[in-house]
Amino acid sequence: MDYQELISEVYEEVNALGLSGKVADYIPELAKVPGDRFGMALVDLKGNVYGAGDYQEPFSIQSISKVFTLTMVFHVFRSKLWSRVNVEPSGNPFNSIAQLEYEQGIPRNPFLNAGALVITDALTSKFENPIQCIREYIDELAGQHCVRINEEVMQSELRHAERNTAMAYFLKAYKNFDNDIQEVVKTYVSHCSIEMCCEELAKSVSFLANDGYSIFANREVLSESHTRRINALMLTCGFYDESGEFAFRVGLPGKSGVGGGVIALMPGKFSIAVWSPELNEKGNSVKAIKALEILTNKLKFSLF
Amino acid sequence: MDYQELISEVYEEVNALGLSGKVADYIPELAKVPGDRFGMALVDLKGNVYGAGDYQEPFSIQSISKVFTLTMVFHVFRSKLWSRVNVEPSGNPFNSIAQLEYEQGIPRNPFLNAGALVITDALTSKFENPIQCIREYIDELAGQHCVRINEEVMQSELRHAERNTAMAYFLKAYKNFDNDIQEVVKTYVSHCSIEMCCEELAKSVSFLANDGYSIFANREVLSESHTRRINALMLTCGFYDESGEFAFRVGLPGKSGVGGGVIALMPGKFSIAVWSPELNEKGNSVKAIKALEILTNKLKFSLF
Amino acid sequence: MDYQELISEVYEEVNALGLSGKVADYIPELAKVPGDRFGMALVDLKGNVYGAGDYQEPFSIQSISKVFTLTMVFHVFRSKLWSRVNVEPSGNPFNSIAQLEYEQGIPRNPFLNAGALVITDALTSKFENPIQCIREYIDELAGQHCVRINEEVMQSELRHAERNTAMAYFLKAYKNFDNDIQEVVKTYVSHCSIEMCCEELAKSVSFLANDGYSIFANREVLSESHTRRINALMLTCGFYDESGEFAFRVGLPGKSGVGGGVIALMPGKFSIAVWSPELNEKGNSVKAIKALEILTNKLKFSLF
Amino acid sequence: MDYQELISEVYEEVNALGLSGKVADYIPELAKVPGDRFGMALVDLKGNVYGAGDYQEPFSIQSISKVFTLTMVFHVFRSKLWSRVNVEPSGNPFNSIAQLEYEQGIPRNPFLNAGALVITDALTSKFENPIQCIREYIDELAGQHCVRINEEVMQSELRHAERNTAMAYFLKAYKNFDNDIQEVVKTYVSHCSIEMCCEELAKSVSFLANDGYSIFANREVLSESHTRRINALMLTCGFYDESGEFAFRVGLPGKSGVGGGVIALMPGKFSIAVWSPELNEKGNSVKAIKALEILTNKLKFSLF
Repeated sequence: MDYQELISEVYEEVNALGLSGKVADYIPELAKVPGDRFGMALVDLKGNVYGAGDYQEPFSIQSISKVFTLTMVFHVFRSKLWSRVNVEPSGNPFNSIAQLEYEQGIPRNPFLNAGALVITDALTSKFENPIQCIREYIDELAGQHCVRINEEVMQSELRHAERNTAMAYFLKAYKNFDNDIQEVVKTYVSHCSIEMCCEELAKSVSFLANDGYSIFANREVLSESHTRRINALMLTCGFYDESGEFAFRVGLPGKSGVGGGVIALMPGKFSIAVWSPELNEKGNSVKAIKALEILTNKLKFSLF
Repeated sequence: MDYQELISEVYEEVNALGLSGKVADYIPELAKVPGDRFGMALVDLKGNVYGAGDYQEPFSIQSISKVFTLTMVFHVFRSKLWSRVNVEPSGNPFNSIAQLEYEQGIPRNPFLNAGALVITDALTSKFENPIQCIREYIDELAGQHCVRINEEVMQSELRHAERNTAMAYFLKAYKNFDNDIQEVVKTYVSHCSIEMCCEELAKSVSFLANDGYSIFANREVLSESHTRRINALMLTCGFYDESGEFAFRVGLPGKSGVGGGVIALMPGKFSIAVWSPELNEKGNSVKAIKALEILTNKLKFSLF
Repeated sequence: MDYQELISEVYEEVNALGLSGKVADYIPELAKVPGDRFGMALVDLKGNVYGAGDYQEPFSIQSISKVFTLTMVFHVFRSKLWSRVNVEPSGNPFNSIAQLEYEQGIPRNPFLNAGALVITDALTSKFENPIQCIREYIDELAGQHCVRINEEVMQSELRHAERNTAMAYFLKAYKNFDNDIQEVVKTYVSHCSIEMCCEELAKSVSFLANDGYSIFANREVLSESHTRRINALMLTCGFYDESGEFAFRVGLPGKSGVGGGVIALMPGKFSIAVWSPELNEKGNSVKAIKALEILTNKLKFSLF
Repeated sequence: MDYQELISEVYEEVNALGLSGKVADYIPELAKVPGDRFGMALVDLKGNVYGAGDYQEPFSIQSISKVFTLTMVFHVFRSKLWSRVNVEPSGNPFNSIAQLEYEQGIPRNPFLNAGALVITDALTSKFENPIQCIREYIDELAGQHCVRINEEVMQSELRHAERNTAMAYFLKAYKNFDNDIQEVVKTYVSHCSIEMCCEELAKSVSFLANDGYSIFANREVLSESHTRRINALMLTCGFYDESGEFAFRVGLPGKSGVGGGVIALMPGKFSIAVWSPELNEKGNSVKAIKALEILTNKLKFSLF
């Protein structure tokens, strides 16, 4: 399989389709990103990188960062984590507070905002400087210094963090939050404001396609079982209210962010990151999802 | 791989664990089934059957029947179906009516009761005698005459069908139901009251592990794409509010029923059916799920 | 107080305002009613009638009929009724089924559709021919033969009764429904399809302004305590999601129907019925509510 | 009418019933109050005070304070207020956040916590030192210096204010909150922590029984129309999820607090305050409600 040819073909085909969507605009800084950007990077388990388009241009990884914090927290809490966060798909929007009330303060999964806040809270209990640890952790996973926090995006998100802050207080009311709320929310929006390019992202999640072993960090990052857990969660909950659709059309574990990035994994084969800022109405990148669909079709691959 | 040895080992190991649960009792007929029954049947893509325990004893397939009606309906409606039923996991119980109200009469997926009722309604629009067609269809898939409707279970479910009937009227209020409600509900409880044994079930869903081609019916039952769709739906929504947990622990597409049966598929390899009537609090068979978990561990298989 | 002058003045003033709304159109028969109709009738405790405009033209009383069935059921069930229906205002639409699920099949009050269905079910348990009894009961209260069921409206409502039927099955699933559902729903839509004019309505509810004694039936219809209960329910729940607004603007116990009718009571003084078919967005008659607001202002009356 | 005799009789009768409930314990300071306290004070429109039992012992007024802040805010916002808070009863608990989400950040009424927070936020926009203004305002209404903030209760509530803080952030996310959240929440818990005795409370709400004119402040505190609005709101929403029941059993506008206090009004006649700390399961004082029920029965008074 010539991955470079594959990636290039997919890139061309998607470009030819002329797809469009809407750049996220809930904070002004994200809305500034040019909508026509499009890049893809595939990293095989030997560490070879195959790229196309804007695959070396950094973008805001947003919710993709939840994959990294979830990975980190496994070392701290292991199975105890699951008394604080559930692992089931949610039938509600990613930022709904109503479900949290019905379920008495236990978020349904770690990729909902409420669940990711619990994860960041857990990291804050463990680490003195959690955002610094998160940065170093991702750098190690990528095998290179690459993590930059976009300060403007972060400040802007902080100014619009009321809903997430409400969620954190609500979790605290249910005794599912331990640390200072402003501090945790700041850490949370900071890791959402991380910028990386497709190449760096594909490298940094490579261990999830490799049973937990990172060839870039040269160590087992996660046990095989924990790796499965994260991949299973991505498959069932990784794409907001489009997770079922993605499971069918692409059939790979993956995670999207409102910055237009998507990471996905073919276990035993490769990791991939795709980026294009225009989103569909469910909040997922139009071109990135189409690219992954075409790619798995070309590979004649499907989980199913 | 010696599948017979594998099945026998798994069977012994699960039995040794002494797991227990609670036989479904929402209708008296189901509660009569002896709780200690336990059987497994694996069918490979050549049609070989490997069994253990009570794998030839018929039981009530209940919600597993939704896989068959969903398969049937693909021929009738193809992609048009998805304007009437969504494909996303639900964060609510399988028989919740509240979510149906918030989502304006479009069930979130075809494995919720509301979604399965829409499917049965669609079959009723197409076939003169839908329950007869369903029976013949399953018989054909299994390559043998095997479908029996347990009349007592069916009558008992019919006497307790208020909630499903409410759901059907509610769907009709949203113009998402075309036929006579009593008739459709009767067809629905009839297909839920079908009895089959593990061997028959494993044969009849074999096509889902074989890209849609049934070696028992000697024909392509479903296109490759439709097969993927059903498998993706089973992975994300097949186990009620335990679908995420099952995806992690077992990692196979599958579907459970409150009769204690579970079917699961390893695409390209085999189909399997496991039955044991005692359920956990989420309504899934305790022993069947444990058996599948041990089996995939032994196979060192995981989607992820 | 010259009530005739009062009524005439209010009638003129409301007419001069040129208010408009939208005639109910959820069934075609109701949509046919001319929107410009407007009538008022006030009946004092001596039985004198003071009318203005179309106060002798019959209209569809719709949900106002729930006041009569609730009154009837008090003789049958007395305080036992309150285990089947609650007495608290609802924050949800009159036909919401979600709240019924959260509250386990106990409707929040008897003026919600679900609550009124429970009432009609209770009457069906008691009377052989409940709709006939309801008709005779209202006739007796009005002191004259006046109740007509509009057969076309009734049939049309029956053809659009899916939501109410769903509600009834749902109640039955929670064991809060005893009789044949189709029969009860037919009785329910029949009493909603009763036509009466303002004069007849004002007479028939006169007992609610008179501590339960009807001067037209020449008997105590309801105990003082039960009368208070119904009036309190009307004040807190009588106007769908506008009950709080009505309590403030008018300050009288009352009940509206989507046919454009409103009844209201000044305890110890008079009963009144107002009709005008154009509704505001909450489903209450625009002119009728304005008329009652002006009337209580002129009387310098307020509960508060 | 000899009000002193009336009050004394009611006091004796309630005491003889041996009613009991449960002192609020969601904060430790409230739980310390002896459960057997019981006092009543009635103030007629000439300013005469009639008392029984512990009517001069201060207690935590809690949600009764919402009546005062709502009164204050009328001068500031008048009818513009109603774009920020609705006036309809709620079918959900006083501290539910789910309904707030469904209704897009507009609380259903000013007596829900979310609604009262909006009111306190509005006062914060107007006054430099809002809690000081609230204290002086109530003192003026009572015609005497009487308002004390219990610092321990306040600090304790502040330490348990996560749910209210969550609500405030949520309101801000919907742009229905203008000021610093910590500051407003502190003002809110401060006015909830005010202590007053029955006599002082009855005096301070006397204007609500007197068309808005306070004989203690010697001025019109509120227009007649605004007075009606507040009384109507108390009747439909003043007793959490027992408002309908209270409207029937007592039939007076009133407001309760979890400290065990209840105020109520007979417009044109008197105001009354009753206190007893043991609550029923809906959070209302068992003895206070029974006392008011007996009192209105003795007066043969009913709104209805």
